[in-house]
Amino acid sequence: MTAPTIDLNADAGESFGRWTLGDDAALFQHITTANIACGYHAGDPATMRASLVRARNAGIAAGAHPGYPDLLGFGRRALPATDSDVVDYILYQVGALAGLAAVEEVPLTHVKPHGALMGRICRSPELAVAVTRELQSVLPGVPLMFAPAEALRAVVAAGLPVIPENAADLDFDQDGINLVEPVPQAKDPAAVADRALEMARGTARTVDGTVIPMPVRSVCVHGDRPNAVAVAEAVRRRLEAAGFVVRAA
Amino acid sequence: MTAPTIDLNADAGESFGRWTLGDDAALFQHITTANIACGYHAGDPATMRASLVRARNAGIAAGAHPGYPDLLGFGRRALPATDSDVVDYILYQVGALAGLAAVEEVPLTHVKPHGALMGRICRSPELAVAVTRELQSVLPGVPLMFAPAEALRAVVAAGLPVIPENAADLDFDQDGINLVEPVPQAKDPAAVADRALEMARGTARTVDGTVIPMPVRSVCVHGDRPNAVAVAEAVRRRLEAAGFVVRAA
Amino acid sequence: MTAPTIDLNADAGESFGRWTLGDDAALFQHITTANIACGYHAGDPATMRASLVRARNAGIAAGAHPGYPDLLGFGRRALPATDSDVVDYILYQVGALAGLAAVEEVPLTHVKPHGALMGRICRSPELAVAVTRELQSVLPGVPLMFAPAEALRAVVAAGLPVIPENAADLDFDQDGINLVEPVPQAKDPAAVADRALEMARGTARTVDGTVIPMPVRSVCVHGDRPNAVAVAEAVRRRLEAAGFVVRAA
Amino acid sequence: MTAPTIDLNADAGESFGRWTLGDDAALFQHITTANIACGYHAGDPATMRASLVRARNAGIAAGAHPGYPDLLGFGRRALPATDSDVVDYILYQVGALAGLAAVEEVPLTHVKPHGALMGRICRSPELAVAVTRELQSVLPGVPLMFAPAEALRAVVAAGLPVIPENAADLDFDQDGINLVEPVPQAKDPAAVADRALEMARGTARTVDGTVIPMPVRSVCVHGDRPNAVAVAEAVRRRLEAAGFVVRAA
Repeated sequence: MTAPTIDLNADAGESFGRWTLGDDAALFQHITTANIACGYHAGDPATMRASLVRARNAGIAAGAHPGYPDLLGFGRRALPATDSDVVDYILYQVGALAGLAAVEEVPLTHVKPHGALMGRICRSPELAVAVTRELQSVLPGVPLMFAPAEALRAVVAAGLPVIPENAADLDFDQDGINLVEPVPQAKDPAAVADRALEMARGTARTVDGTVIPMPVRSVCVHGDRPNAVAVAEAVRRRLEAAGFVVRAA
Repeated sequence: MTAPTIDLNADAGESFGRWTLGDDAALFQHITTANIACGYHAGDPATMRASLVRARNAGIAAGAHPGYPDLLGFGRRALPATDSDVVDYILYQVGALAGLAAVEEVPLTHVKPHGALMGRICRSPELAVAVTRELQSVLPGVPLMFAPAEALRAVVAAGLPVIPENAADLDFDQDGINLVEPVPQAKDPAAVADRALEMARGTARTVDGTVIPMPVRSVCVHGDRPNAVAVAEAVRRRLEAAGFVVRAA
Repeated sequence: MTAPTIDLNADAGESFGRWTLGDDAALFQHITTANIACGYHAGDPATMRASLVRARNAGIAAGAHPGYPDLLGFGRRALPATDSDVVDYILYQVGALAGLAAVEEVPLTHVKPHGALMGRICRSPELAVAVTRELQSVLPGVPLMFAPAEALRAVVAAGLPVIPENAADLDFDQDGINLVEPVPQAKDPAAVADRALEMARGTARTVDGTVIPMPVRSVCVHGDRPNAVAVAEAVRRRLEAAGFVVRAA
Repeated sequence: MTAPTIDLNADAGESFGRWTLGDDAALFQHITTANIACGYHAGDPATMRASLVRARNAGIAAGAHPGYPDLLGFGRRALPATDSDVVDYILYQVGALAGLAAVEEVPLTHVKPHGALMGRICRSPELAVAVTRELQSVLPGVPLMFAPAEALRAVVAAGLPVIPENAADLDFDQDGINLVEPVPQAKDPAAVADRALEMARGTARTVDGTVIPMPVRSVCVHGDRPNAVAVAEAVRRRLEAAGFVVRAA
């Protein structure tokens, strides 16, 4: 019998110029996939490149983490850009990271939208399909990583690659989509670990207590939470203790 | 006997959001190569994509035109970023354009630095080599387009691809490097055409009147000059009248 | 009997760095009040200062035209910033213009929100009151200029100064609030002049044809419309021909 | 006999959106003057306002800390903007802070240029005079705070107000101007305290060991140094132990 597997991902490279956010060096000891910010909500070319190198050195997978062009709001505000602009924002950012990754010989494994952009894509099957389809021209075969809701099923139905994932350190609405926290606070590592394990086993609880299916292949913890490293460590231990092999999706 | 050839390039895609700069549609009727701004000094994802499509439809070559991250100064101010940052700024922008170009199936033919960044690279053999070398990982075989001065000879000596070029509508210093004009003014099309032909034949005159070798394979006219289209048209006619085949380098 | 008066305002100073938008020099010959962009959706310090000088030299009133921090979207996208952030964005921009205006000895006569920010304030009595109240600390006695809908009545009820205005070159929804045009197109000057006169006389027609009260003291025409100068000129002539004295509110 | 006095200033409000820099709450317990970033190199409207309130609540003086428009470089890169642009950048930022300060009823006590802009103004008497002169229209009587070198003497000679200051935690060149540290490192609090006391007594040592006059009325410690709070505390104790009354200039 084969042990079940699960990926543990976190957003990374979210520093910007003089400002540091998160302790990626410590975090990368516990996670298996890093989503690297691409300059629109966070990240700058030097930070992006250093993050790719850090992921490679830690032996973890690296992908792009594009966001809305809103440094001041850290991509957590739902900018009503057109769908067409959103697709182009993503291609721009993915391409930019791919340029730096090519030099560092780091293969990009996935693309995960950030913050309010994630929420929008999870709620728009049409946009999710458009993004994943055009992404194939830039990074052939590379999946979009997002919540296993209606939009994800549309992308799968279109024959395009996905990695269903969701965050264990955020609440869910009734559609199984994470509710964005304006500024992440410290959370109880054990409680997040409980939720992560529940998700790895295929279910989650919405804010109103309903248990819903949550067929994820990757579980996220946020790297900019004050106790992010402790949370990631607790989640990883819990998953492994429960018999999961934790590895990139 | 084969007719001599010369490329006629211009910066393009230098609009930004609500603001339009240059008449690319008209300009592309006369030039053979477009250098497309990549978002740091001008350009945005939608403009970049539209510019790639416009170049493709006009049947002309398209390349990347990265600049300093200075929208307010349009990349015409010499930001003292470190060499390492400059390399990463270029890789980021080239990758971003490459992402959009992949979707539109437009092959990128070259990379030409913009404004003050061009001046810096032309004056730094070490930086010019570093940029061209790392560029090979992103776009294998793609040349750096810049002035045929000492730095270009260093890149050639390193076995890396270049397209020697210079602008016919700007003055030259004693090293044969263009002097940046803070805000381009209208220029006499005939006078620019004279200089373009002189350059196509291998020489140029510096600001102090000295004739210097100018072994270019491409001649530039600036797309944001008020009478840019008239200038481009005059240059093209003069070159063709003198027996040159005007085509991408 | 005293002739009725009406103000004719337009957004101005909406260039940014290398990019020019609108022909303010020509426009200022026809309007009586300029709303000067403050750097967030358009405008930069040098443009702002030059616009203040231009308004002074043209003998017209000048005020602040703050927007959302979204250069790429020109402030025409409804960024879901918090009310508290919106108030601070406005104070920041008004103060910035006031700093430049102090040096040029130009009194600021009003504050008019731009684009999507205008739409939001017109729809939120609470926010409109908060903005106008805090504005009094920066520029005592200076009114907020916006649409005569519910929010404006709330500001008046709070004893705070307003200038009711609306644009004659945009459509109205059923609340009498302008519908933002993503990118302004040329419009028939005569048709806009008809609407301006109707508004000066106190009524307007919504998109569904209903005639509603429109008690404005100022009528706006947009300076970034391709034929903005012709429109402004037509509006002014029509208003004057109908017996209005056109002057700052 | 009156005890000698000295001011202890630090840069503050240098967070931006999601990113926090420095521990202003702790720092303000030790310093007597806060220089508040104004949005160009750091700071945003909400951070600026909160910093003004924090200074008021701590009972310390607050002034403006304008920088070059270079968030990515944190204003520590010498952007070759024109003198005219530099003056307007400063007026814009000072006005913006003044707008927020008016609402919070915090009087602004001074303007201190940031980073590379400080270095430029210290080296240009003409620019220093121009900035201080125009500042008088925005904030009458408010001094420019900068190094006591040739430019400061020119401002004094022009009859304009200044506060001579210098940083005790940076080296000096032969002109007595601080050498900018790209990214501040932790420094020995006792060593900085030694230098601060030496400066309070009117002299300093250049990088080559020469003792030069340093007639400051304010001593700076940088708030973004990792052990900034410990350094500030050590400096204050040393100054007070030596008999100085530490208070705003």
